[in-house]
Amino acid sequence: MRSLRELARFASKVTAAYPTAAGSLASGNSSIAPAASLLQRRVGITMSAPAAVDVDAYKVGDSTNIKWHEGSVDTATREKAMNQKGCVLWFTGLSGSGKSTVAYTLEHALFQRGKVAQVLDGDNIRHGLNSNLGFSAEDREENIRRIGEVSKLFADSGMITLVSFISPYRKDRDQVRARVGDKFVEVYMKIPLEVCEQRDPKGLYKAARAGKIKGFTGIDDPYEEPLDAEIVMEVAKEGGDGTLAPPEKMAAAIIEILEQKGFLSA
Amino acid sequence: MRSLRELARFASKVTAAYPTAAGSLASGNSSIAPAASLLQRRVGITMSAPAAVDVDAYKVGDSTNIKWHEGSVDTATREKAMNQKGCVLWFTGLSGSGKSTVAYTLEHALFQRGKVAQVLDGDNIRHGLNSNLGFSAEDREENIRRIGEVSKLFADSGMITLVSFISPYRKDRDQVRARVGDKFVEVYMKIPLEVCEQRDPKGLYKAARAGKIKGFTGIDDPYEEPLDAEIVMEVAKEGGDGTLAPPEKMAAAIIEILEQKGFLSA
Repeated sequence: MRSLRELARFASKVTAAYPTAAGSLASGNSSIAPAASLLQRRVGITMSAPAAVDVDAYKVGDSTNIKWHEGSVDTATREKAMNQKGCVLWFTGLSGSGKSTVAYTLEHALFQRGKVAQVLDGDNIRHGLNSNLGFSAEDREENIRRIGEVSKLFADSGMITLVSFISPYRKDRDQVRARVGDKFVEVYMKIPLEVCEQRDPKGLYKAARAGKIKGFTGIDDPYEEPLDAEIVMEVAKEGGDGTLAPPEKMAAAIIEILEQKGFLSA
Repeated sequence: MRSLRELARFASKVTAAYPTAAGSLASGNSSIAPAASLLQRRVGITMSAPAAVDVDAYKVGDSTNIKWHEGSVDTATREKAMNQKGCVLWFTGLSGSGKSTVAYTLEHALFQRGKVAQVLDGDNIRHGLNSNLGFSAEDREENIRRIGEVSKLFADSGMITLVSFISPYRKDRDQVRARVGDKFVEVYMKIPLEVCEQRDPKGLYKAARAGKIKGFTGIDDPYEEPLDAEIVMEVAKEGGDGTLAPPEKMAAAIIEILEQKGFLSA
């Protein structure tokens, strides 16, 4: 947890330096709305360029040992502060294979380690960003494309981004991989159809078998297995009882791998 | 910077507790790929459900004083750890009004204070998520809708999200406001057209006046001013020289407001 302490120390340093800026602002000739008006909803600020400006955020930045890119925070600096590297863990697998369960458990476990992680899944994407998409082949492709772009934005901001969608087509996943680049980690939940169908936590397989859902992955629509997933989660074939490991255990295994791949430090 | 220290302390605590989980994993009966194979691209993990599993992430979580939602990190917990509240600062204004400059300067200044902020602007959205949109009325509306949804995802993950797009139509901005809710803060860069046109940093006004760009906001397409923006940045009319304040100064002013609105602590 060295990085968090470092960040705290670093932040204290700049806070100590920062009041200068805030102070000079108050004593400058710009007119800032008084504190009382902040209770109102709207705040108007009139800003003119005074003759002598001694507020210089970059100068404050330079007084630390971190090099700033003018006007933006570069990826390395951001990652150093968060002591992690932004990445996309792309969970793919059949419905009922445990993608979301493992992703949320992993998000939780990472947070416990002081890491910043976020799950993107059907709950927060299909009802929002992709609410105007249906389930045609074209819309499914666009669904995955948008999710890929959003996951890239999250990863570029330093987040460990956990993406959980069936994403059945290899071509769509590979396009995301190409866009996201080195920080893309495909996690294939390789759970046999019969195990997923037996679990059927949402009753979807039953509905699909009854013909109530058309084009269901694994039933009347294909699932194209990843050929080169970075992480493959399998049910034990020999010596095991054929059931799934608890999600905490899978999450812990993925954390080990993330650590060794260097994503949990910067 | 109290929160970062707290986070560091908190993180140390769970790290101390966590090795138990990692240790039990190694001694469990699951087969983890040895470290050497991690140098290879693909990692296969076979997970079975052992008879006695003593890895319980939730148990570890319970040993701290923070209440966990099973399998996910709730917003309050996330915000408490980051000592900030996720929000969307929506910068709107004419081309050349300084939206992106102020947004990036603010991102920088927030980062210096140990906050996690991220700018979403044309550079990272139009070429990615919205690369399949044009400039028709319909596409412009969808452009802002998607940006709004992504900014909501970022804010929900605890980020201070800085959004910089002209977003000329009131209806589109109001729809985002309705979606994002209380954490939406509209920042209107109220800079007169003549000032923006004189600055013309990208030469776009010149091109629009020459008829080389059609439907340009402020020239042959309307800009609908916000009626109830939370923050309005104006050029000084009296006593000022009519030019813009330096971005560092505007950013410092916005930080004061964010602080008073309670977004910089949790």
